[in-house]
Amino acid sequence: MATLDDIARELGVSKSTVSKALNGAKDVSKAMRHTVLEKAVEMGYSRITRSTEQPKLAVFIINMEYTKPEDFGYDLVMGFRQAAEPSGYQVDLIPLTLQLQTELHFDTYMVQNNYVGAFLLGLSLLDPWMKDFETCKTPAILYDNHINFNPRVTHVGVDNAEGMELAVQHLKALGHTKIGYLSSALEAYVYRQRYNAFFQAMKTYGLSADETLAGCSYFINECLSEHLPRILDAGCTAIVCSHDLLAHSVMIHCAQMGLRVPEDISILGFDDIPMCRYTLPPLSSIRQDRTNIGKSAFYAMLNQLNNVHPSSLLLHPELVERASCAKVNAK
Amino acid sequence: MATLDDIARELGVSKSTVSKALNGAKDVSKAMRHTVLEKAVEMGYSRITRSTEQPKLAVFIINMEYTKPEDFGYDLVMGFRQAAEPSGYQVDLIPLTLQLQTELHFDTYMVQNNYVGAFLLGLSLLDPWMKDFETCKTPAILYDNHINFNPRVTHVGVDNAEGMELAVQHLKALGHTKIGYLSSALEAYVYRQRYNAFFQAMKTYGLSADETLAGCSYFINECLSEHLPRILDAGCTAIVCSHDLLAHSVMIHCAQMGLRVPEDISILGFDDIPMCRYTLPPLSSIRQDRTNIGKSAFYAMLNQLNNVHPSSLLLHPELVERASCAKVNAK
Repeated sequence: MATLDDIARELGVSKSTVSKALNGAKDVSKAMRHTVLEKAVEMGYSRITRSTEQPKLAVFIINMEYTKPEDFGYDLVMGFRQAAEPSGYQVDLIPLTLQLQTELHFDTYMVQNNYVGAFLLGLSLLDPWMKDFETCKTPAILYDNHINFNPRVTHVGVDNAEGMELAVQHLKALGHTKIGYLSSALEAYVYRQRYNAFFQAMKTYGLSADETLAGCSYFINECLSEHLPRILDAGCTAIVCSHDLLAHSVMIHCAQMGLRVPEDISILGFDDIPMCRYTLPPLSSIRQDRTNIGKSAFYAMLNQLNNVHPSSLLLHPELVERASCAKVNAK
Repeated sequence: MATLDDIARELGVSKSTVSKALNGAKDVSKAMRHTVLEKAVEMGYSRITRSTEQPKLAVFIINMEYTKPEDFGYDLVMGFRQAAEPSGYQVDLIPLTLQLQTELHFDTYMVQNNYVGAFLLGLSLLDPWMKDFETCKTPAILYDNHINFNPRVTHVGVDNAEGMELAVQHLKALGHTKIGYLSSALEAYVYRQRYNAFFQAMKTYGLSADETLAGCSYFINECLSEHLPRILDAGCTAIVCSHDLLAHSVMIHCAQMGLRVPEDISILGFDDIPMCRYTLPPLSSIRQDRTNIGKSAFYAMLNQLNNVHPSSLLLHPELVERASCAKVNAK
């Protein structure tokens, strides 16, 4: 791993200039600071080598609420801190703006701000840093995003394949054989995974994996006004949804159409967000334990900080039965 | 978690009888010992609760050499110990016989022998304990085997999907478009995964995923005498093999048939076992870093011991280019 001396030699400047530049001292010009940072990143310099300080980890959050206990990101962040802080790491939370991503490359930001690794929540495939993760050298743990071929990046989340097997197994046990699938747009990594996993699970359980019984839209309204009626007309007795918010909207829309949930149609969500307990009827769902995913992100980080490079660390999901699914012949 | 008192109350015996039975004292009958162990396992008693002792982990090995550096299991065991022992765990190596598996259930063995968790290498789907893992309560980390629906079991290994993408990407970059696949029998979990991953990768890279260009046999001889000639006759210019030993046999057989590797046919292995360096020509392969998989097994165990339940922890593979693959027009 590159040292301050290596960087100084490479740039033909003094070691103290390099040290000052990396630490943001005021008597080093902005241009020199930029040059030193870029070279340090290029040479694989990492703050890990400065072992006398308490190591710092960054949690970047984008497009996700996390300040209140009912927010989706709250448990993820809490779990990460619960595992990291007792192990001696400082954890900083950083809202990740588009501006920040376009101003500095991921590695540069990490070196400049003295972080040994990052946990990133809520990125979409369109975020500028997604490109950086293909080649970054600082450990990056991504929630619900997957990067091939870069040893430094690890995907954490729930095992969607197992989740969809739980879903189909449950509905089949209730007598359902014609099961529809509604989803957000498949441009998001996690929704594409779940879509493929659902049809794979239908095959695994010997049911017809008929993709005409699926509907995917970026807009929930389109799912409700176009795909839902089509799936109901085709005779589906149960519908699995890519996530709970969509499942909730589907339940409301079914009620408005005069259908009873679960007597006329069973609805199963995914994620088990806190509101599932309070919907009408309470929504059955496939649970991802967000606190434990947060913890697992720290264990994935421990792998990386010890030069072990996981591509993915996925948790077992759990079926949470409430009142939105019933036997098919309960009509 | 159940205590000695709970077990004693449930069985209507004294706490000291339970303690003696669990610890194998000689003044407790074999029958009583068996009764206490079974009840302890049923009630979820775990040695984790006895925090004053150094915790013990078991590494079970079946059908796999591990005593010499060139053995497949050597690095796996060493990596596990390198991570576990400095963290304060005692690690015991236990050859896993069929007799041991049929005498005692996995959980019973673990409680009886005071282990808080196990890392298991080399099990096939036919091993009696595989059934136990569907419901066991003691953390079990399985190398190259996957169990759905039991939170206590975690699968570790290499990311085969990414590995096959590396393989196909590499051969496509060398100009190959018609690529064959040879494999051991698909009854083993890992070979089934790799088979599916290969054809998925062919699709991902826009190549024809023609399953008639694959051959799978339990016996290597059958692969060589039946499938290999068929695949060559079909015009394949490259062959990916499910593992290095098979790839090595394929290279030898090609030479005996008068074909030059890589000028006439490119051969790519999987695993990167030590012998790849010494074959003729040296075999290109997709590397799984066995030392790091051993380490990751301990990190997976840390998750489990902290009540975080991964279904899988898979490492990034790596392409190791040697001399068995070349450009398609190098003839």
